[in-house]
Amino acid sequence: MLDHIDEGKGLQVLSALRIDGKDGSLITIALNVPSGKFKKKDIIKVENKFLKDDDTNKLAVIAPKATINIIKDYKLIEKRRVALPNEINRIFRCSNPDCISNSTEHIESVMDVIDKEGRVLKCRYCSRVLDVNKLKYN
Amino acid sequence: MLDHIDEGKGLQVLSALRIDGKDGSLITIALNVPSGKFKKKDIIKVENKFLKDDDTNKLAVIAPKATINIIKDYKLIEKRRVALPNEINRIFRCSNPDCISNSTEHIESVMDVIDKEGRVLKCRYCSRVLDVNKLKYN
Repeated sequence: MLDHIDEGKGLQVLSALRIDGKDGSLITIALNVPSGKFKKKDIIKVENKFLKDDDTNKLAVIAPKATINIIKDYKLIEKRRVALPNEINRIFRCSNPDCISNSTEHIESVMDVIDKEGRVLKCRYCSRVLDVNKLKYN
Repeated sequence: MLDHIDEGKGLQVLSALRIDGKDGSLITIALNVPSGKFKKKDIIKVENKFLKDDDTNKLAVIAPKATINIIKDYKLIEKRRVALPNEINRIFRCSNPDCISNSTEHIESVMDVIDKEGRVLKCRYCSRVLDVNKLKYN
């Protein structure tokens, strides 16, 4: 279960993590749920979904307040907050069309997280500082 | 509440009806819910959403098994199945690029529902028979 997703980001998380229910698993999404801690939050519950590092990195960028709750046999067995790593490889695309990571040379993008609190990412190749709200996925 | 949405169509209905929670209203979506009547179904609950004719027509095309349940003060006050009208104006785009409804003359699309059961639509202008699973919205 993904809890405390920043209000209004639930559908974006769904799409970034490619949760679409096409595998037939039960999915529940709640948007704009009243929350004590923050004003409102979005929640996503998914059966049998194992988050890879790429998924938690996307989550940390899109919904930095999110918590990941792992539930097994109706018991909460793990609860953790998402956190940005020092660098994010591959998953996002640099917004600079002239950046070598966007060339035909198939170089994987590398972004340094230069401010974790403010979610500021910087392309290691062209040094462009990236707006996390406009990032495109590879 | 929209119940009995055809399995796997919930997110498409959400997008077609422009339900995105940006107005802050509480929204719950459940995908792949076990259902006695059909094998599985999707469900969408929305606060303060009034469906216009265009919305129910979209719903009838995308999720023909859907039921619309109107709940007020915790009571179910109306329950109805969606049904295709005889013609659908404006909301869908003809897939024929040469159709006059796609020209710059701003003519509204008109589609005759020639088979309600099989959900077959036919453009009144160019007579193209349209695949309901590939319709684009205007």
